[in-house]
Amino acid sequence: MNHPIRVNFERLREDVLALSRIGQTPDQGIHRMAFSEGDLEGRRWFRSRIEAAGLEVYEDGAANLHARLDWDDKRPSVMMGSHLDTVPGGGPLDGALGVLVGLEVLRTVKEAGVALKHPLEAVDFTDEEGRFGGLFGSQAIAGQLTPAVIHNARDLDGVTLTEAMASWGLDANAALFARRAPDSIHAYLELHIEQGPVLDRNQVSIGVVDAITGLFKWDVRLMGQTNHAGTTPMDMRVDSFQGLAEFAGEINRILEEHGSPHSRATIGRVELKPGAANTVPGQTSFSLDVRDTDAETLRNLADAFRRTLSALARRRDLMFEFDVLSEIPPMRCDPGLVQLVTDTAERLELKHLRMPSGAAHDAQIMGSVTRTGMIFVPSLEGKSHSASEWTAWEDIERGANLALHTVLQLAAADAGAAIREQKPKRKQA
Amino acid sequence: MNHPIRVNFERLREDVLALSRIGQTPDQGIHRMAFSEGDLEGRRWFRSRIEAAGLEVYEDGAANLHARLDWDDKRPSVMMGSHLDTVPGGGPLDGALGVLVGLEVLRTVKEAGVALKHPLEAVDFTDEEGRFGGLFGSQAIAGQLTPAVIHNARDLDGVTLTEAMASWGLDANAALFARRAPDSIHAYLELHIEQGPVLDRNQVSIGVVDAITGLFKWDVRLMGQTNHAGTTPMDMRVDSFQGLAEFAGEINRILEEHGSPHSRATIGRVELKPGAANTVPGQTSFSLDVRDTDAETLRNLADAFRRTLSALARRRDLMFEFDVLSEIPPMRCDPGLVQLVTDTAERLELKHLRMPSGAAHDAQIMGSVTRTGMIFVPSLEGKSHSASEWTAWEDIERGANLALHTVLQLAAADAGAAIREQKPKRKQA
Repeated sequence: MNHPIRVNFERLREDVLALSRIGQTPDQGIHRMAFSEGDLEGRRWFRSRIEAAGLEVYEDGAANLHARLDWDDKRPSVMMGSHLDTVPGGGPLDGALGVLVGLEVLRTVKEAGVALKHPLEAVDFTDEEGRFGGLFGSQAIAGQLTPAVIHNARDLDGVTLTEAMASWGLDANAALFARRAPDSIHAYLELHIEQGPVLDRNQVSIGVVDAITGLFKWDVRLMGQTNHAGTTPMDMRVDSFQGLAEFAGEINRILEEHGSPHSRATIGRVELKPGAANTVPGQTSFSLDVRDTDAETLRNLADAFRRTLSALARRRDLMFEFDVLSEIPPMRCDPGLVQLVTDTAERLELKHLRMPSGAAHDAQIMGSVTRTGMIFVPSLEGKSHSASEWTAWEDIERGANLALHTVLQLAAADAGAAIREQKPKRKQA
Repeated sequence: MNHPIRVNFERLREDVLALSRIGQTPDQGIHRMAFSEGDLEGRRWFRSRIEAAGLEVYEDGAANLHARLDWDDKRPSVMMGSHLDTVPGGGPLDGALGVLVGLEVLRTVKEAGVALKHPLEAVDFTDEEGRFGGLFGSQAIAGQLTPAVIHNARDLDGVTLTEAMASWGLDANAALFARRAPDSIHAYLELHIEQGPVLDRNQVSIGVVDAITGLFKWDVRLMGQTNHAGTTPMDMRVDSFQGLAEFAGEINRILEEHGSPHSRATIGRVELKPGAANTVPGQTSFSLDVRDTDAETLRNLADAFRRTLSALARRRDLMFEFDVLSEIPPMRCDPGLVQLVTDTAERLELKHLRMPSGAAHDAQIMGSVTRTGMIFVPSLEGKSHSASEWTAWEDIERGANLALHTVLQLAAADAGAAIREQKPKRKQA
């Protein structure tokens, strides 16, 4: 009996380990922020791995690095992708794993000599993590950038994207040329770590992502009266923080009444003014981050949060105002692709769970251009954006083989043959 | 009919206005922090006013400035006092009014030629507001200082008290000589603005203080798990801020169950870590400031707050710890002196209210040495420690005359005669 085709897991594992050493600090995790030294070294390494595999390298105007197999301009490609950049103090897998799995899928397909009806691409997207705003490379490919967006992008130190790209000999405005026509991409598939605890808690290796949550983020201010904590009787106070405390206690009720099982709401930042122990705080400002996979549910939640804040502010004699800091619409994955990933996971006998992504990904942007799917592998204890981010090797291998088999069904001239009829070359881990 | 003796209100008013110009900034209130240029100028001015009145000036080892009338070392004095130093950006009355009323009482008694069985003192206490910890001058007089306390006192910029006093040619250790034997003081009376809204709201001119609240101040930390706001389902969170929100909602219940009508509890400082909008906060630290006039009530409140925090932390899987930042016992004013001030207010037909002081005062320290009383005058809208701190002139006059009559009953050889039989010299405002 023939064995089904599999990735070369040892090669993938060595790539993960090699890349994890690039940008590694002694005790602060990995620093490969976009256009940093670490990022440059990571990209050079990735380019050399593409070349060593005999694949084609292509760098577009947004500095996205593409590994390509069987490329021509006539046929729409099946694209995999993620990002090699990290947050400051990031881990070895967020983004990197999706890029390396993409590369490994191309190598495996190339070595197996599979005939393709669609060229394959594995892309490292530029600045996913947001030194200059985030999702830059995928936005460029999706045609979502404008000259003004490019011109105004700057990091927390005031360095502009234009300056950062120029320091690498690149013209930031060339990102406008990175746009890909929708009919040039047949499908987009991204493998990523979950960055949450669901798969790990449930001991499931594979998450089949059916939607990426949208969100709104508010900066809310409640204004009362600043008073002396000793001389102001409780019933003469207009305490802005007590307003927030009451509101925070209403969050679960609002989610239950107006949200879905996928709804999340978080108060992550709180500031009291004047902020002294002996002073009743006259102003409390806080962030409200609310997410759901459904646009209408998000609108309903926004209405409910606004009503609750408005009512409690009125009752407590507080002034209430808020700014919308960001609004990102949710993205539904392509139902056909979700089903294909699910069926493939079942055929490979992988325990899987259909779930939304609570974090943003390049896939969210690519969903505006082409049919899009995502595969999650577990995050140990739900950790990410930290040095302790990790995924068991077995789950990485399962995810990579699921990606391989899904891509073959999307791109191979004869998918059934490609999947089933590979002769075993050697024993695999 | 003879008019009862009264202070020279126009002279007092001119003093208040003259002093308010010392340390005045264009738009940031008054800066007369202890041992600042403003403080030095204020003290020079006060010394000149004492001398101009033909009163004796005495500066003790703690740099307290005493105006003295009919002084000798044999008889215990009736002392009035407060402080000329301000918080940064303070107002014209906090502290200053009590010192100036003291001076005006001495001048009035001197001019009326009242025979005294007790010498009178009006004291400007050093660093009440706390550049170097607060209540320094009164602690020195009460004998509460030690060489270690003096040596370790430093301001927020790291300047030591020793350095600050040396820059004025003073030896900080001389503060140990400022101690006064308890039998050298017959009584202590302090007039101060309320710094709270109670008199103003109730349109009452005089507060007869019967106690100064004690307090405990905790730095509390609740520790949960830092998680991604998008990827972590609500029921998998250990959200430290939600713990604080629940606790804040319990404060009024705890005060109702375990406190008194004078109890206050305030959360004035809150810090979330990591403090990002898209992150469930793993740690929330906050201040808890609790006050009451009764020591046992304060102990009961501390127990109740600790139990509530402990129970909710356990239920929410949070770690809970706290440090006691400060603990100040409450001080009961002398019942006889409280009654004397009350009776005097009634005789002068002044609307008055018996009330506790929610703020700390030099009187709190002096209460450990001698029988002590306090008179409050209203703070407009309860404001203090701000440029908009103010008290109506009429209320200042009423307070000053109440202080005068109270002091005469404590110190005059024939109080009845001193109060009733002054001949009117001129029409008063």
